Amino acid sequence: MNRRKLLRLLSQGLALGSFAKLSSATGQAPSPRSFSEKSFESMKTLGAPLREYGERSEFEKEVVRYISPNLRTRHSGADFTPLEKLEGVITPSSLHFERHHGGVPSVDPAEYRLVIHGLVERPLMFTLQDLKRFPSVTRTYFIECAGNGQNGYRNPPDPTLTATRSRGLMSNSSWTGVPLAILLKEAGVKAGARWLIPEGQDAAAYTRSLPLEKALEDVLVAYAQNGEALRPEQGYPVRLVVPGWEGSIQVKWLRRIEVADAPVMSKDETSEYTDVMADGTIRAFTWVMDPESIITYPSGQQAISRGFHEIRGLAWSGHGRIRRVEVSLDGGNSWKQASLEGPLEPLAAVRFKYNWVWDGKPTTIMSRATDEAGNTQPTPEEFFARWGRNNRYHYNAIQAWHVGADGKVLNGDKALPGALAPSRLGAAGRGGCGGEA
Amino acid sequence: MNRRKLLRLLSQGLALGSFAKLSSATGQAPSPRSFSEKSFESMKTLGAPLREYGERSEFEKEVVRYISPNLRTRHSGADFTPLEKLEGVITPSSLHFERHHGGVPSVDPAEYRLVIHGLVERPLMFTLQDLKRFPSVTRTYFIECAGNGQNGYRNPPDPTLTATRSRGLMSNSSWTGVPLAILLKEAGVKAGARWLIPEGQDAAAYTRSLPLEKALEDVLVAYAQNGEALRPEQGYPVRLVVPGWEGSIQVKWLRRIEVADAPVMSKDETSEYTDVMADGTIRAFTWVMDPESIITYPSGQQAISRGFHEIRGLAWSGHGRIRRVEVSLDGGNSWKQASLEGPLEPLAAVRFKYNWVWDGKPTTIMSRATDEAGNTQPTPEEFFARWGRNNRYHYNAIQAWHVGADGKVLNGDKALPGALAPSRLGAAGRGGCGGEA
Repeated sequence: MNRRKLLRLLSQGLALGSFAKLSSATGQAPSPRSFSEKSFESMKTLGAPLREYGERSEFEKEVVRYISPNLRTRHSGADFTPLEKLEGVITPSSLHFERHHGGVPSVDPAEYRLVIHGLVERPLMFTLQDLKRFPSVTRTYFIECAGNGQNGYRNPPDPTLTATRSRGLMSNSSWTGVPLAILLKEAGVKAGARWLIPEGQDAAAYTRSLPLEKALEDVLVAYAQNGEALRPEQGYPVRLVVPGWEGSIQVKWLRRIEVADAPVMSKDETSEYTDVMADGTIRAFTWVMDPESIITYPSGQQAISRGFHEIRGLAWSGHGRIRRVEVSLDGGNSWKQASLEGPLEPLAAVRFKYNWVWDGKPTTIMSRATDEAGNTQPTPEEFFARWGRNNRYHYNAIQAWHVGADGKVLNGDKALPGALAPSRLGAAGRGGCGGEA
Repeated sequence: MNRRKLLRLLSQGLALGSFAKLSSATGQAPSPRSFSEKSFESMKTLGAPLREYGERSEFEKEVVRYISPNLRTRHSGADFTPLEKLEGVITPSSLHFERHHGGVPSVDPAEYRLVIHGLVERPLMFTLQDLKRFPSVTRTYFIECAGNGQNGYRNPPDPTLTATRSRGLMSNSSWTGVPLAILLKEAGVKAGARWLIPEGQDAAAYTRSLPLEKALEDVLVAYAQNGEALRPEQGYPVRLVVPGWEGSIQVKWLRRIEVADAPVMSKDETSEYTDVMADGTIRAFTWVMDPESIITYPSGQQAISRGFHEIRGLAWSGHGRIRRVEVSLDGGNSWKQASLEGPLEPLAAVRFKYNWVWDGKPTTIMSRATDEAGNTQPTPEEFFARWGRNNRYHYNAIQAWHVGADGKVLNGDKALPGALAPSRLGAAGRGGCGGEA
């Protein structure tokens, strides 16, 4: 061991000066109670044996997806990833947000078939094993419900908002599958084909229209998530992964893909997942998710004390890589660049961080993301100026958190002038995507 | 949509010509039975409701860690990640290999304390919340038991070997924690300090010696794995992650770190995790894991048919990034470069792939990894020439798989001249790390 190098390492530290006084607030000098009876308890008895399949600690059972108590049914709705209770960027599969329109079907993989038909030279049917024999691709991609952020439409803002309820319809996984382009090439797409009509094997026969061009670019017919088979609520055994696009087009429990010359205009892309513009007209096919970010610590309903904190959050964009995340510690008057933790993969969530010493004064913190295509997350005012207030999808405005003098963190979004159009948000019969009513 | 671009994409395909005839072997033309009654079953009834915490499909229950039936106890031993049943590079936390010496303790996070003491200016005690307030780091690292590959010492080789039993004591996770260097700087390391003595809060009071220099480089005091809290068998609530080094030094259920001037020579680094060299002398402190790779498909006990297959495998090295993986399809006579799937992170497992059309003739396939430090995985002959045959740790030789004319895949390692020294492998009282006896 090179003593000189060692001394240099010790004296340098890690160039993280701003938290140098953290120890006064946290680490304590050990007392005779440091190694108390309790800390020895687990050392006195033999622990649990080897298990074939592990489970999380009994002490972590409160980390669950958020299911709104206002849902009228749990068979067609959504639940939320508990963003502020997680670390890093991989969403544990058990906590990936859910969204389904007829409940989660049970599909026997031995009976599973995928059919590609319509405007093709050779209609084909694949078993699950067939799909796994093709060349595979594994990529980390976020999936986000088009309704994520829907609470942002509320006016006045909900003071009890959490990071989970603000943006928990976004999860980030490592997906494995065969490129749909390969399967289409096997089938031989006929001239005139421009659209794909994927259909799910669920009780909703969930059906969407997907442009052929996107399918040829990067769409996966995925059978694995975070190393193992897809989870049931994520489409077991096979789903589409459509990188960067709204989650609702990433059809789960995929049973067939019809190659067509026009979109099918299914119930699932007309009665839902269309956008009501300011003038009342309806916009269809808003697929790409604009850049978003959210501070997960400190965030709504948490409480902090004075001193050092690492502000942590997540950012993502359907337009490519996140290029920059800025943090404001003064209600948006000034912005500082947060650090991004690599590897910075395109169309995947990234973790951002900023070292902050809180002086105990009330303040409002927020983050804004910019992607490599140059799109920057708007303020709520900018967002509503562009989109109007009648919609309930694709909200990507900045989320602010207010830190009170007591350290309590609350929703920092401000009420905006004007009443909320009552016809959309929370309207009966419009399902539960993003909404809690 | 640009029709010209679309046509170009379709005509290009994806430059994956070698599997062009896959459809004849797999996808079939749909018949009237394509959409059989069975495929409609799940569409006729409402599926399962939203759940707070998801579980895997009932059809995946056979994907489990391998526990040898020969173990005398399940409270001190190891089980294996089922490598050939997984995809991508992230090991699901429920399937991360296990290794413990006194069972898995149950530690209440509210009572948890980490103490840093010994040759420091300020002995410190941290709660779990304290640790989470420090600047955090998330990185993907493999963790591998020093005993991984131990079946390679068997002579003659075990014909029933699987990829799981060959190399399943390696798992790959995204770990989050505070750099140990930061905590040491808070405590103020005194002159003369050269070693750390981390101790676990388990029934074995598992204790090792870790050079201070490594701790200052990249060691994490980790509290999260794949986005959520550590799993109990991975050290909940806090463990060391020592990137690239043998798993056994990455102390779990970490309760204290003593800063010292010399290694402690604990039972856990003398009675185990030492290497018996060819001349009978004992080598201590072999920490860095040399490069390894293994083909997971097709692998032992699987069966394949003629035609296209994507050979898939995993590679990793404790010396840094994997630079290259080569595949041989002719028993090691010639080697072809496999593709590596990015991002290529240092000290993390990577997935390699090679497109292969099997002609139905018996053959032996194998892979070998080279890392960015220039180390290449040895043949068994090369390995034993260097290490001798008395050891049971740090086996990193090439694993061969033999594909028979019937498509059945078996262990392709050849018997080597000379008897196996009986004093080590499977010897009573030496625990279960890597071994199955």
